Amino acid sequence: MFRCDDRRREMRLHAGFSSDGFQWEIEPAPIEWIVPDGIDQPEYGYDPRVCWLEDRYYVTWCNGWHGPTIGIGSTRDFKSFEMIENALLPFNRNGVLFPRRIGGSYMMLSRPSDNGHTPFGEIFLSQSDDLVHWGRHRWVMKPEQPWESTKIGAGPVPIETDEGWLLIYHGVLTSCNGYVYHWGACLLDLEEPWRVVARGDSYLLSPQMLYEQVGDVPDVVFPCAALADSATGRIAVYYGGADTVTCLAFTTVDNLMTFVKG
Amino acid sequence: MFRCDDRRREMRLHAGFSSDGFQWEIEPAPIEWIVPDGIDQPEYGYDPRVCWLEDRYYVTWCNGWHGPTIGIGSTRDFKSFEMIENALLPFNRNGVLFPRRIGGSYMMLSRPSDNGHTPFGEIFLSQSDDLVHWGRHRWVMKPEQPWESTKIGAGPVPIETDEGWLLIYHGVLTSCNGYVYHWGACLLDLEEPWRVVARGDSYLLSPQMLYEQVGDVPDVVFPCAALADSATGRIAVYYGGADTVTCLAFTTVDNLMTFVKG
Amino acid sequence: MFRCDDRRREMRLHAGFSSDGFQWEIEPAPIEWIVPDGIDQPEYGYDPRVCWLEDRYYVTWCNGWHGPTIGIGSTRDFKSFEMIENALLPFNRNGVLFPRRIGGSYMMLSRPSDNGHTPFGEIFLSQSDDLVHWGRHRWVMKPEQPWESTKIGAGPVPIETDEGWLLIYHGVLTSCNGYVYHWGACLLDLEEPWRVVARGDSYLLSPQMLYEQVGDVPDVVFPCAALADSATGRIAVYYGGADTVTCLAFTTVDNLMTFVKG
Amino acid sequence: MFRCDDRRREMRLHAGFSSDGFQWEIEPAPIEWIVPDGIDQPEYGYDPRVCWLEDRYYVTWCNGWHGPTIGIGSTRDFKSFEMIENALLPFNRNGVLFPRRIGGSYMMLSRPSDNGHTPFGEIFLSQSDDLVHWGRHRWVMKPEQPWESTKIGAGPVPIETDEGWLLIYHGVLTSCNGYVYHWGACLLDLEEPWRVVARGDSYLLSPQMLYEQVGDVPDVVFPCAALADSATGRIAVYYGGADTVTCLAFTTVDNLMTFVKG
Amino acid sequence: MFRCDDRRREMRLHAGFSSDGFQWEIEPAPIEWIVPDGIDQPEYGYDPRVCWLEDRYYVTWCNGWHGPTIGIGSTRDFKSFEMIENALLPFNRNGVLFPRRIGGSYMMLSRPSDNGHTPFGEIFLSQSDDLVHWGRHRWVMKPEQPWESTKIGAGPVPIETDEGWLLIYHGVLTSCNGYVYHWGACLLDLEEPWRVVARGDSYLLSPQMLYEQVGDVPDVVFPCAALADSATGRIAVYYGGADTVTCLAFTTVDNLMTFVKG
Amino acid sequence: MFRCDDRRREMRLHAGFSSDGFQWEIEPAPIEWIVPDGIDQPEYGYDPRVCWLEDRYYVTWCNGWHGPTIGIGSTRDFKSFEMIENALLPFNRNGVLFPRRIGGSYMMLSRPSDNGHTPFGEIFLSQSDDLVHWGRHRWVMKPEQPWESTKIGAGPVPIETDEGWLLIYHGVLTSCNGYVYHWGACLLDLEEPWRVVARGDSYLLSPQMLYEQVGDVPDVVFPCAALADSATGRIAVYYGGADTVTCLAFTTVDNLMTFVKG
Repeated sequence: MFRCDDRRREMRLHAGFSSDGFQWEIEPAPIEWIVPDGIDQPEYGYDPRVCWLEDRYYVTWCNGWHGPTIGIGSTRDFKSFEMIENALLPFNRNGVLFPRRIGGSYMMLSRPSDNGHTPFGEIFLSQSDDLVHWGRHRWVMKPEQPWESTKIGAGPVPIETDEGWLLIYHGVLTSCNGYVYHWGACLLDLEEPWRVVARGDSYLLSPQMLYEQVGDVPDVVFPCAALADSATGRIAVYYGGADTVTCLAFTTVDNLMTFVKG
Repeated sequence: MFRCDDRRREMRLHAGFSSDGFQWEIEPAPIEWIVPDGIDQPEYGYDPRVCWLEDRYYVTWCNGWHGPTIGIGSTRDFKSFEMIENALLPFNRNGVLFPRRIGGSYMMLSRPSDNGHTPFGEIFLSQSDDLVHWGRHRWVMKPEQPWESTKIGAGPVPIETDEGWLLIYHGVLTSCNGYVYHWGACLLDLEEPWRVVARGDSYLLSPQMLYEQVGDVPDVVFPCAALADSATGRIAVYYGGADTVTCLAFTTVDNLMTFVKG
Repeated sequence: MFRCDDRRREMRLHAGFSSDGFQWEIEPAPIEWIVPDGIDQPEYGYDPRVCWLEDRYYVTWCNGWHGPTIGIGSTRDFKSFEMIENALLPFNRNGVLFPRRIGGSYMMLSRPSDNGHTPFGEIFLSQSDDLVHWGRHRWVMKPEQPWESTKIGAGPVPIETDEGWLLIYHGVLTSCNGYVYHWGACLLDLEEPWRVVARGDSYLLSPQMLYEQVGDVPDVVFPCAALADSATGRIAVYYGGADTVTCLAFTTVDNLMTFVKG
Repeated sequence: MFRCDDRRREMRLHAGFSSDGFQWEIEPAPIEWIVPDGIDQPEYGYDPRVCWLEDRYYVTWCNGWHGPTIGIGSTRDFKSFEMIENALLPFNRNGVLFPRRIGGSYMMLSRPSDNGHTPFGEIFLSQSDDLVHWGRHRWVMKPEQPWESTKIGAGPVPIETDEGWLLIYHGVLTSCNGYVYHWGACLLDLEEPWRVVARGDSYLLSPQMLYEQVGDVPDVVFPCAALADSATGRIAVYYGGADTVTCLAFTTVDNLMTFVKG
Repeated sequence: MFRCDDRRREMRLHAGFSSDGFQWEIEPAPIEWIVPDGIDQPEYGYDPRVCWLEDRYYVTWCNGWHGPTIGIGSTRDFKSFEMIENALLPFNRNGVLFPRRIGGSYMMLSRPSDNGHTPFGEIFLSQSDDLVHWGRHRWVMKPEQPWESTKIGAGPVPIETDEGWLLIYHGVLTSCNGYVYHWGACLLDLEEPWRVVARGDSYLLSPQMLYEQVGDVPDVVFPCAALADSATGRIAVYYGGADTVTCLAFTTVDNLMTFVKG
Repeated sequence: MFRCDDRRREMRLHAGFSSDGFQWEIEPAPIEWIVPDGIDQPEYGYDPRVCWLEDRYYVTWCNGWHGPTIGIGSTRDFKSFEMIENALLPFNRNGVLFPRRIGGSYMMLSRPSDNGHTPFGEIFLSQSDDLVHWGRHRWVMKPEQPWESTKIGAGPVPIETDEGWLLIYHGVLTSCNGYVYHWGACLLDLEEPWRVVARGDSYLLSPQMLYEQVGDVPDVVFPCAALADSATGRIAVYYGGADTVTCLAFTTVDNLMTFVKG
C-alpha cells in the first residue's frame, strides 16, 4: 500500500515494479507514449487496466481526448509503451479487455459516461478484429441494487473459470453527502460474455476502514487490478482507497464463485 | 452500539431485543407486515419510530410506496406486525406519533418531502380520529438557525412534561461538502402541540466523534428513539452515527428543559 | 375566451358569471374566504375546480399554505364562500373531487408535488367521510407515453358514465425549451375509481393554435372545467391557453369513450 | 411542408414518397426493421439521414438502445429496411455518413451526447472498413461562435465539391428561455475530412419565420437532408421548424462556398 | 422599430443616428473604444445606457471582462468614444448613471449578477467623486411582486421630477418555460436616491404583442432608454422585444407618477 | 490549535489574544462594530484578515450585507472596532489588503462570488485612495492546475520580499464528494501586484492529517493569517482544518520562494 504523492494531482500513468507485490517502485516520470501519426498525446490518463493478451501487455485507460475516453496501447517490457488509438469515442471510462479472443474477436467492456462526475452508468461490451475498429456492441448490465444504484463499471480484467468470466466491478450509491463506491461481482458467459450468468445479491466490499473512508475522496473502494493464481485459486485485488491510497485485498475463486451464485 | 451489517444495503425494518438496552439481538429476517387488502407491501422501510399508544405499540416509518411516505402499523408482541395504511400521501418522511390522544384526537408530526435528498423541510402536525384518515393539518415550525437551515424533522416520540411536549428533532446544514445533521430541541404546547412554546437557540449535538463524522454518510447524528424514565427524568437517546452505527446518548428532562428555554 | 388582465399577476380566485357560457363577467374583487378558526387565509389560490356535491358547490384549488396544497371550501350562491380546511399536506396540486360519494366515501384525486415547477407527478386518490380527514390513499396512474412523460394531473371533475368515470387530465413533456402541456383522457372504474379501466393511447389535444402556443407560458393547454349535458352527451371543456387566455373546446361523451378505448 | 400529425408523439421512422419534392405521402405505419440476431429492435428512432452509398441507400438515425445512439441500416427500395448494427455506443446523436469511401474507408460524423437534452456537443469522425466496426476516431470541430456556443451537430449528408465537402450543421445557443437552433456551414478537406478547411463566420439561417419560432419546441431550425443538383449547383434543404413542421429552403453550391469562405 | 440583423449574434455596441427617433441609421461597424493603458478591450458589450452628464455623454454597458461587468466611457460626438474603466468588479449588469451629481457625488445603479443567466438580482447604488473609484454602496430594492420575483434591474436613466427620480426597471418571473420580462416603475428620493419613495404595485408592461412574445428570446420587454420632454412631460421609451426587435412606447410623467403612487 | 465551540454556528467575528501564538484566549462576545450612519450592522462575518497599515490594524472580512461582500474596518487596540464601509458590492469573498500603499494607492485582492457555495472564482485587485471608493480593478489570476480547478482565493496578507509579494492562496477541486481545499502560492510584482511573476506548479499543502480531512466540512485546509519574521524569514501560517479546528504550520520565505519559482 503506498501513498499517492504527486503534488500536482496531475493524472498521468506511471510504470511501477515490485518483486513481492507489496513494495512497489513507481517510476517518477510518467509514461511517454509512442503515439502514431494522427493520434493526439494524452491530455491525461488514469484508472489503467493491464491485460496480457496473446504476445504482449495491453493497457487500457481513461484517456483525456476531447473528454474522457478509452485509450489503448501496449508494451512488452514496461519501458517502451506504444499507443494504438482511442478505442471508442468520448465520453467513456472503465475500458477493460478480456485476456483472450472469444469467438475469434477481441472484446472490451466499457461504461459510456458524460464529461463530469457522471451520475449514470451501465456496462457495455464491444468487439473487434484488430483492436482498432470496434463494433457489434452488446449491452451487459445495469445497476440493480441500492448500493450500485447510481452507476456501475468494470473493475479488473475478468478472470476465466470453467463456469464463466468472473468480473469484479464497482457500484456507486449517491448519498446526501456524495458518492459511495463499493465492489460487486458477477459471472459472465464464457462464449457470449455480454450475458450475465450470475450476479451477487449484495456488495462484496464497502468502505469500512478509515483509509477507505477518509482521504481526497471519502468512501471509495475502487478495484483496478487482480492477480489470480490458477493453481490455488487465490486472488489478490489492488484497489484504490478514498482516491488516496492503493490497497490490497485477498480472496479466492471459490469464494467469489459462492458469492456470485448467491 | 452496533454496526449495521446488512450487505445489501436494503432498507428493511427488523425487530430487535435487548435486556439492558446496550446489547441488542437483531432479528436476521426483516419484519413481514400483515397487510390489509388493497394496501401494497412496503417497497422499503427505514427510520422507524415506535410509540406505545393506548393498548399497543404503533410503528410509523418512512415507507416506500410510489415514493417515500409515512407507513403506520402496530404490534403487541414484536412478533406479529400489522400494517394499517399509509397515513399520508407521498412524499413525506419522519412521521412521529404523540403517545396519547390530545383533545380527543390522535396526532402525528411529519415532514413533507420530495422524492430525493430533499433540500427543504418543515414540520407539520396532522390529526385523526381513527389513525387512518388524517386532516386538520397544522404547521409547527421551520428552520430558523444556520445549523438547521436546510431542513428539520421530528426525532423520537415527544416526551410529555408538565410544561409541554419535549421534542428532539434533527436539523440539517448544507456545507460545500454535503449535509451535516445536528440535533435540536423544542417544547410544544400540551394541548395545542402545533404551537412552539420554547426552542433551543443552538444545536444540542453535532457530529464531533469519529464514528459520527466518518462512515457511509459523513457528519450525521440522527435521533430516532428516546427512553424517558419518569421517576428520575433520565433520558436515553438512540441515534444513528454517520448512517453507519447506532449510538446512545444520555441526558435528563431538566437538562433539556433548561436548553430549550435558552 | 377572455384575456386575463390582472396586472399584478396575483394568483387569487375570482367568481365569474355568464348567461351563455361564452361571455363572462368576472368579479373584480377576489373571493374573500370565510375561514374557520385555526385556518390561515390563503396566501394565493389558482387552478380551481368547482364540483356540485350533494347540496352545494365545493371548490378545490391549489392553495398557498407553507407551499402549494389543496384547499377545500364551499358555496351555495357564489357570493359567500366558506373554506373548510386544507385537505392535504403540502406539497400538492390539482385536487379534484368526484361529484358523489362512492362506496359511502368522498373521493378526491390529487397530484403530490414539490415546491417549484415540479418535474414529476402521478395521480393519487384519497378518501374521506367528512371532507376534512383524508386517508385510504390509493395510487391511480403515472406517466406512460412520451407526451406526458414529465408529469400528469387530473383536469375537470370526472364525468360519470355507465362504463366508468371519464377523466380528462393534463400531461407534460419537457422539451429543451421547457414544458409542453397536453390533454389526455382515461376511464376510471365506477366503484373503485383508482382502477384505470381504459386510457387513450395518444394525447387528445396539443398546443397548435397561436393562442395556445404563444403567451405568458408558451405551449400550454390546461383543462380545468367541463360541462357535460347528460341528455345529449355534449361536453364543453374550459381550458387555459398559454397561461394567458381561457379557451373553450367541444366534444361528446361518445367521442371521448371511443378515444379512451383506443 | 407538412405538419407532423402523429398524436402519440412517438418517435418512429416512417417512409415517405413524393413526385415533386413538395407533396409527400408519408406511410402511416412506421418502418419495421429487419433486425439481425442479437440486435435489439429500436426503442425509438428520429432525425434520420439517408445516404446513397455504392449500391444502396443507407439510413443512419438516432436509435433508442439503452439511451440514444447511432443506428445504421439500409434499403434498396424504401419498402424493405434492414438494420445492420448500432454503429457506436450510447450516448450519441446526429450520425451522418459520407456518400463514398474516402481513402478506402467509410466515414461517419457523429456528436457524442449524454442521455438528456445534452448541453454540450462537438463533431467527431469515425472510420470503418465494413460499416460495422468503427475506429480511427478523429475530432472535427467544436463550437466557436456565440450562436453555436452550446453544441453543434452535423446536418445533411456532406456535399462533395472540388474544394472539399460542404457540411451544413446545426448550432445551438442557450438563452434564458431555452435552446435556439441555427444553421451553420463549413468546408471539410476532401481526403482528410476531419480537417476543417473553411467555416462560415456567422450563422446561415436563424428562426425568423413564425413557423420556425412557434410550435412544439420554439426557435428551432434543424437541417436534416439536402438535395444537390450537380449540373446546376442548386441545393434544396429540408429542415425541421419548431420541431413541428418540415420546411424547405433553397440555395446553391456557389452561395454556400462564398459563405464558408467568409 | 428595426430588426437586429447582425448574423454573427456578436454582442458589440454600434452607434446609431436618427432625425425623427423612428428611422435609425445604425453604423455597420461596431464602436472602437479608445482604451487607456492597462484597460482591456471589451470582449463584448450590450445593453448600453447613454446619459448626458455635465459636459458630455457617458455610456455605461454590460462589458465582457472576465465575466460581465459595468464598462463606463464617454463621447462628445458619437464618433469618438473613450473608455474610462470598468466601474465595478464582475459580475454585474444593468449599470445606469444618474444625469447629475447628487450631494456632490456621481451615482450609479447596478445589479450584481453571476456569470450565467443569473437567477437572482437586486438593485444597488454606488457613489463616486471621479467616475473611476466607486464606494459608499447602498442597497436600493429587491423583488417584491410575483411578476418580478426572479430579479430586477434598472432600465433607462432615471427621470428627474419634483417628487423624486422616476425609474423604469425590468422585473423577471421564471415560468416553467423560462424567464418572462416585464416593466416596473418606482420613485426614488431626490437627495438620497437609494430610498424608494413609491413603487407601482403591478407591472407597467408585459409581453402581449406578438413581436414581444416571439423571437430569439420569447416573452421579453426590456426597457433601455427613455426620452423625456420636460416641457410637456411626454416620455418615449425604447425597449427590446423578444431580444429581437427594438420597440418604442409612449407615456407621460403624470401617468407614471400616478402609477408608482398606486 | 483550538476547537470552534460556538454551538449556534453563528458566523461572527471574535477578538482573540495570545502571548505565545499557541494558546489563545477568544473573547466570548463577538465584536461589536461601531458603524457609521447609513451602514448596516453585519448580518454575519467570517474569514477575517488583519493587516497593519500605516497607523492601525485594518480588518477585512466576508460581511453579510444582502449577500456576502467585503467589509472593511479598523482597530488600534482590539477592543474598539470601527467599520468603515463595504468596500465592494456583493457578491464577493476573500478580500485581502496589501500592508502598504503601492504607487500611492491602497490595494485589495478579492474574489467575486455568487450567493451560495460558489463554483467558480478568480482573483482580482482593486485600488483606492481613501479605503472607501475602489476602482482601477485589475485581473490577477485564474485557476490553472487540477487541484485548484474550481476556484482560487487570496489567503493571508501578502508578504513583501525583494522579489515581489509572496501570496499564499487557496485552490479548490470539486471531487464527486464535494470540494477539496488546498494551499497554493505565487509571487506578485512589487509595483504592479496584479502581475504574477511566479506561481508554484503544484499545491503547497493538501488535507492529509485526520483533523484536516474530518470535521464539519471534510478535506479543507484554508489559510487565513501569516506571521513573517523579517529577520529570520520564518513564517507561521494559521489555517482552518475541516472548517472545525484552527491549525498552525511553519515555513520560511526561502522555502516559499523556491516553491513558487518551481
